[in-house]
Amino acid sequence: MAARQREISVSEFFTKNRHLLGFDNPQKALLTAIKEAVDNSLDACEEAGILPTLRIDIQQLAEDRFRIAVVDNGPGIVRAQVPKIFGKLLYGSKFHTLKQARGQQGIGISAAGMYGLLTTGKSVVVISRTTPGKPAHYYEIQIDTRKNAPQIIADSAMEWDQPHGTRVEIELVGIYKKGRHSVNDYIRQTAIANPHCEIFYSFPEVEGVQHFPRASETLPPEPREIKPHPYGVELGVLIKMLKETRVRNLVGALERDFSRVSPRVAFEICQVAELRPMANPHSIAISEAERLYRAINSVKIMSPPTNCLSPIGEEQILSGMKKEIHASFFTAITRSPAVYRGNPFQIEVGMAYGGSLPTDDLVDLLRFANRVPLQYQQSACAITKAVLSIDWRSYGLSQAKGALPAGPIALFIHIASVWVPFTSESKEAIAAYPEIMRELRLALQDCGRRLAVHIRAHRREAEEQKKKSYIEKYIPHIGIALREILGLPQKVEEELVTTLREVLEHSRTTR
Amino acid sequence: MAARQREISVSEFFTKNRHLLGFDNPQKALLTAIKEAVDNSLDACEEAGILPTLRIDIQQLAEDRFRIAVVDNGPGIVRAQVPKIFGKLLYGSKFHTLKQARGQQGIGISAAGMYGLLTTGKSVVVISRTTPGKPAHYYEIQIDTRKNAPQIIADSAMEWDQPHGTRVEIELVGIYKKGRHSVNDYIRQTAIANPHCEIFYSFPEVEGVQHFPRASETLPPEPREIKPHPYGVELGVLIKMLKETRVRNLVGALERDFSRVSPRVAFEICQVAELRPMANPHSIAISEAERLYRAINSVKIMSPPTNCLSPIGEEQILSGMKKEIHASFFTAITRSPAVYRGNPFQIEVGMAYGGSLPTDDLVDLLRFANRVPLQYQQSACAITKAVLSIDWRSYGLSQAKGALPAGPIALFIHIASVWVPFTSESKEAIAAYPEIMRELRLALQDCGRRLAVHIRAHRREAEEQKKKSYIEKYIPHIGIALREILGLPQKVEEELVTTLREVLEHSRTTR
Repeated sequence: MAARQREISVSEFFTKNRHLLGFDNPQKALLTAIKEAVDNSLDACEEAGILPTLRIDIQQLAEDRFRIAVVDNGPGIVRAQVPKIFGKLLYGSKFHTLKQARGQQGIGISAAGMYGLLTTGKSVVVISRTTPGKPAHYYEIQIDTRKNAPQIIADSAMEWDQPHGTRVEIELVGIYKKGRHSVNDYIRQTAIANPHCEIFYSFPEVEGVQHFPRASETLPPEPREIKPHPYGVELGVLIKMLKETRVRNLVGALERDFSRVSPRVAFEICQVAELRPMANPHSIAISEAERLYRAINSVKIMSPPTNCLSPIGEEQILSGMKKEIHASFFTAITRSPAVYRGNPFQIEVGMAYGGSLPTDDLVDLLRFANRVPLQYQQSACAITKAVLSIDWRSYGLSQAKGALPAGPIALFIHIASVWVPFTSESKEAIAAYPEIMRELRLALQDCGRRLAVHIRAHRREAEEQKKKSYIEKYIPHIGIALREILGLPQKVEEELVTTLREVLEHSRTTR
Repeated sequence: MAARQREISVSEFFTKNRHLLGFDNPQKALLTAIKEAVDNSLDACEEAGILPTLRIDIQQLAEDRFRIAVVDNGPGIVRAQVPKIFGKLLYGSKFHTLKQARGQQGIGISAAGMYGLLTTGKSVVVISRTTPGKPAHYYEIQIDTRKNAPQIIADSAMEWDQPHGTRVEIELVGIYKKGRHSVNDYIRQTAIANPHCEIFYSFPEVEGVQHFPRASETLPPEPREIKPHPYGVELGVLIKMLKETRVRNLVGALERDFSRVSPRVAFEICQVAELRPMANPHSIAISEAERLYRAINSVKIMSPPTNCLSPIGEEQILSGMKKEIHASFFTAITRSPAVYRGNPFQIEVGMAYGGSLPTDDLVDLLRFANRVPLQYQQSACAITKAVLSIDWRSYGLSQAKGALPAGPIALFIHIASVWVPFTSESKEAIAAYPEIMRELRLALQDCGRRLAVHIRAHRREAEEQKKKSYIEKYIPHIGIALREILGLPQKVEEELVTTLREVLEHSRTTR
């Protein structure tokens, strides 16, 4: 038995469990691959202070086979890093920092490449250039799943018409669909949540390129990296930090390695823990660390700094929504930052109501985390749970027991955080920490109250609107009936329908 | 930027994302840790052909701190393997084989130890002995998360009163609760699904040891390991297998490395793929592998062998349920094996109805995968989805739209497979593959029909039962009312209630 025990590489693990990464079916796989590439491109551009311009291209090669490419105008990737970034799972710069970013795990893009390789046998193709003074580099990379290491298939310098940026190309088995959970929907939502980003998008079935112009010429303020807050640190992590700190005394280590620990607070912690402030952190015993841990959680420490967050902002949310949704009422709220398990986060809610939004559907829920649209696992998400937990009838909407509210309403909900607590590596739903639920509810209730005021003021109008949509729905049927009964030609029927519609319109506006 | 890119160890990854492994809150963490230890113990005993006897002990050290220990009479672990098995994530013997077992990923028990270390700073303590001829070994192990490697804190020989077996002890932060999702519930269900296993269980709040005796003296037949079936292999995996095969010609490789590929089938595949049967598999190009892949899926190949599965069996399910549930009607079905994505699986359903099961509750759903009870994520599980998809009203139960059926009914549902497709590493819910859903539905419908026959035959009886339970519910209230109105003493009230109950009982039985 012993002989058969052996190590499992993280790539082997995720190959067999690739549903964990969002590659459980071909439709989702296509979306996930594009999403991972777009996340990386936007993060890279923003970090380098560049207004992002993305070209996203989906080419259909066979019924279930696609070649996707994402090109950005970002800073490019240093040559030596390319193979590892695209050919090794769990490799990256964002995992060990506390900073608001789209990517956090160092898995996404290499997993997309691994899925491509698994389903088509084809390499990931990467072109990257860091400066116009140097040539671009061309790479073909495969992941060696047994070793979780990149295998370089091709590697050469090349001419490229872009001064700097990165292009990723993956061939994969997928399914292209429209509607809900579609790539088109994802791109539209990305444009809403990132008004500073310009996107050119070409996709199957349609000739030419769809253009999402930039709605704002200002980059969001660069989010700042923060140190962990003492309240969010567990005993085991504390022990490890003490063991690895470079500071030689306990107060100094507390002060330097954590956020919001002033010398006064550090001394107070040592005092409560009955430890010498000048003790060497490397020689703290477990029982002493336990005392320290308890002391930290009993001493009052300021909340973590929140200037590390970069919310979208009420104005930008409204302009994003107005560009894409035709409604008669808009409102938006950006809450003040709050903290869960030591991690700062911030909730934003945008609401659109009325207009051409469908009257009888459930609310259209647009969920975002660090500006990334979330497309799957809606029911498992804290955002959905928060919406469900509110009594929307008191704000003038209809709502069945245990269901989302119904009505001509769309909700845009965004969480920005240095560490978004996703419920899985596929980053589709947010864990329902109590602090997050609380902030979500407060923001939704605030929007709800504003909506209630609007609905009350426009109730008569709204009822007429409903009646109108109801009648409008039946006008074509009346036309058909009349044509069939009277034996009218198609053209007369069309005229009839037009006339009926005009009469209805007229009677409504002059009333 | 480049300088900050670095590797993330799989332990670091899962420390930060430990909700993925079932350690997202203290209550679940306690259950998960015990479950992982029990899974390992049962697998080890069965593999060695030993009837398992487990001692499970939960000691409460503080309000939220516990020391758990699981002792088995298994074959023990070879000394050199102990540190890696308990101190390294992704290490094990089951990941690379296709064989029905409780564990499959090589993560569970080391993750439990890692969680203990993280929350209490304490090592995992392991005692193991392989034969009475040698001393037992005592280990204290911690996981070095940065390296994902074991750190041995203590290592010595010791006296032990057991001739062979393993004892694991973990100290951790947890919450002990009764009722749904509780450890007690998990142990009870484990006893139902593993009638060949004897369990001694001691837990907080109660003195002494709870004993679950063995209900069967026969071990389940040892499941056999199988090779992958061609239909379940993806292009990328196929390419890798061809690259790594030890056979020098294509037909031979197909025949040897897959299940159900006879020489005739292998030749047919080569012919359809237009490849030379004697070609060297190592030099197959990607385009040729693609042809081979398509050929495999167009040629008729026998379903995989299913004698690799070890279901619980109808008889054992019935005896397990009867031991734990008081009902008036029992039935059970073990379906024939079926296949999803090349993996054999088998569905079993047991049903209990009536008796002392609560009349107004929703169905009590007991879910099992390879004999392991599943406690969380019920709504995300294929089993739940299958139960929901059936119209139970046609079998005589009540059922609200979109809800589980209601009535005095308990369902025991088991999936046995060489590779159970869990929706996450925490192994709480099963992915809804169409083939699995189909088998579940067929088994449930079969049980449903038998139930309908029973209900029709006992309808009058059932209605009386319902009336009785209804009246019984109110007798105590009548007692209270009479006491308050007439100013009776407590004792008279009690006599009154007893008399009323007897009258009711008498009138029912003599009618």
